[in-house]
Formats: sequence, structure tokens, C-alpha cells
Amino acid sequence: MEALEQKILSEGTVLDGGILKVGSFLNQQLDVDFLIKMGEEVKRIYEGERITKILTIEASGIAVAVAVASVMHKNVVFAKKNKTSNLSGELFSAKVHSFTHGTDYTVTVPKDYLSKDDRVLIIDDFLANGNALNGLIDIVNQAGAKVVGCTCAVEKGFQGGGDELRKAGYRVESLAVIEKMSAECIEFRR
Amino acid sequence: MEALEQKILSEGTVLDGGILKVGSFLNQQLDVDFLIKMGEEVKRIYEGERITKILTIEASGIAVAVAVASVMHKNVVFAKKNKTSNLSGELFSAKVHSFTHGTDYTVTVPKDYLSKDDRVLIIDDFLANGNALNGLIDIVNQAGAKVVGCTCAVEKGFQGGGDELRKAGYRVESLAVIEKMSAECIEFRR
Repeated sequence: MEALEQKILSEGTVLDGGILKVGSFLNQQLDVDFLIKMGEEVKRIYEGERITKILTIEASGIAVAVAVASVMHKNVVFAKKNKTSNLSGELFSAKVHSFTHGTDYTVTVPKDYLSKDDRVLIIDDFLANGNALNGLIDIVNQAGAKVVGCTCAVEKGFQGGGDELRKAGYRVESLAVIEKMSAECIEFRR
Repeated sequence: MEALEQKILSEGTVLDGGILKVGSFLNQQLDVDFLIKMGEEVKRIYEGERITKILTIEASGIAVAVAVASVMHKNVVFAKKNKTSNLSGELFSAKVHSFTHGTDYTVTVPKDYLSKDDRVLIIDDFLANGNALNGLIDIVNQAGAKVVGCTCAVEKGFQGGGDELRKAGYRVESLAVIEKMSAECIEFRR
């Protein structure tokens, strides 16, 4: 998505440790009019696909998912991140390793909100190693539902998580894929 | 907001400990088309007021704030919840006591995203004792910005937080105010 690439180039900053800061529009500040444009692009990408539900993960995934859902008129379910693995039987859960924080956490979704008839579009803000997406896919599979596709706003292509999921047969359609980045330069996949 | 009251009556469940569960549309599952209707109501309430920014708090506050912002065409800034109070000088921060979890946490907003020229609408999903709102108001005041109003989807009027803020001179406009609730019955303020 050309407009997103331009926005990353003009407002993004690359920090040490492979972190891309886009807090001014996608993380701690949300440019909602722009998120809606991203939602329109997501709708276009999945035109013709039957989708019953959008699944995301707290916190900033919620913003992107709500913007997409406002265009596609679908309900959003969001997975919560929990420190403990001491969970009730009413939840689907999966373990996720956080690349940013170097720790493990458990993601959960109440069983009430996903069923075997659901055709799920997974949405998140960032895709790096794919750990969060793998946890969400695991949860969709536990529900017996179908993953229609995974769309993240920004994929760090060089971290390989998206390509591994593509190899595994999932449809992964990120709105911008960064192939290489440094403090001086950000290169997108063509 | 009549439609919200109806939705609480038809989909809400009152649990022990004064907890209202509206997970099916406002918390872990988000009925985004309905959230947009709430956004239209918020726009109507603040018609004629100049608002430059919407402030909320993670996680489910983000969903309501993005829906409101999509109607009002404003940027959203969201406060993060942190366990530690060991924070950098680039953040506004305030301490908040969580009624639900019985613990304290610190909310933070990067200084870049709020300035003295901002006129802020604070949005959240629930208003009970008002602790989260007080933290957000504290942060707006630290920035030297102006709180135009506070709107939560559901106010538990019987917990008094909203009325205390009104007494302190803040405009608090909740979309539904619950005066009394039990497993059998939910009564709204008229």
C-alpha cells in the first residue's frame, strides 16, 4: 500500500535493535482517518472471500482491527495477553514468545466468541517473527474455524515470520513489507 | 443512549462483585457497527465544541475511541498501563488504582502526543470509581491541555466516580448510566 509506505518513510524512525517506531500514527497515537484507509485496502484485498469475524490481539492490534471492521462490517474478537498460564476451561489459549520484550506470555480468547463455523481474518499492527500470529492461528485451529488470511499493517520481511507462514500455506497479505532498514534508509519489498 | 441501554439489557450479565459483563459487544468481542453508532452519539453530544484530540487507555478503551474518532475525524492517543513506575522523562505519567484487580498501576503518554494547545475528549469503555479517568485528566493537566469532556460507554452511577468528577466541574457524558444492578435487574439513571 503506497500511502502506508510513504507514511512510514515520512513519520517512521528506526531505533537500535531492529525496532521501527511509528508511534505517531499506528501505535501510541492513532491517525484514525488513515487507519480507515488501510481498512479500505484490506477490504479490497479480501474481496470475494467470505469472512465472518476479525481476530486481533491487544493492545494496538485493536485499533487496526476496529478500523478494518468499520469498513468490512464484521465483529472483532481480541485475544488478551496474560502473564499466567493458570486459565479456566472457558478459554482458548496459546503460548507466545515476545521478540520485543524477550519473555513468554499466553494469549486467550473466550470460547464463546469463536466457533467451527467462523471464517477468520487475523489482523495485527506488526509482523516480525510471526510469534503473535502463530498464537492466533493456533487459537483459530483450536476452535475448528478457518483462517482466511492474515494481514498486518507493517511486516518486517527480513525477520522471516511472514514468509514462514506463507510457506505453511497461509495467505499473508501485509500492507507494507520492509525488506531492509537502518537509521538511514528503509527499503520495501517489490 | 437508548440503543445502548437496550443492548446492555439484552446482552449484559451481572456477575458477583459488581461486575457487568458486556464482553459480547464492548469488551472481548467488539460489535464495531454498534461502536460506530456510539461514535455518532458522541459527536452529537459535543457538537459545537472544538476538540483536537481523543485520549483513551488500553486495551478496550481503544476500540471505543477509534470508533468515535472515525466519526469525528480526530487522532487518538492512548495511555499505556505499566506495572513499574520506573519511567523516562519523555512520558507524562499518573498512578491509577484498579478496582477490578485491586492493584495500582501507572498510566503513561509520550510527551510528543499532547501539548498545551490540545482540547481533549477523554473516552473509555467503563466508568466506575473514576480512577482511570482521574489518571487521564491528571495527564492532560500535566500537558497544560484542556479537558473538554469525558465520555464512557457505561457508567456505574452507584460507584460515584462520575458524579465526583461532575462536582469537580468536569463535563462527564456517559452513554448509559446504571443506577442499580443485580443478577435480576439493571436500572438506568433517568
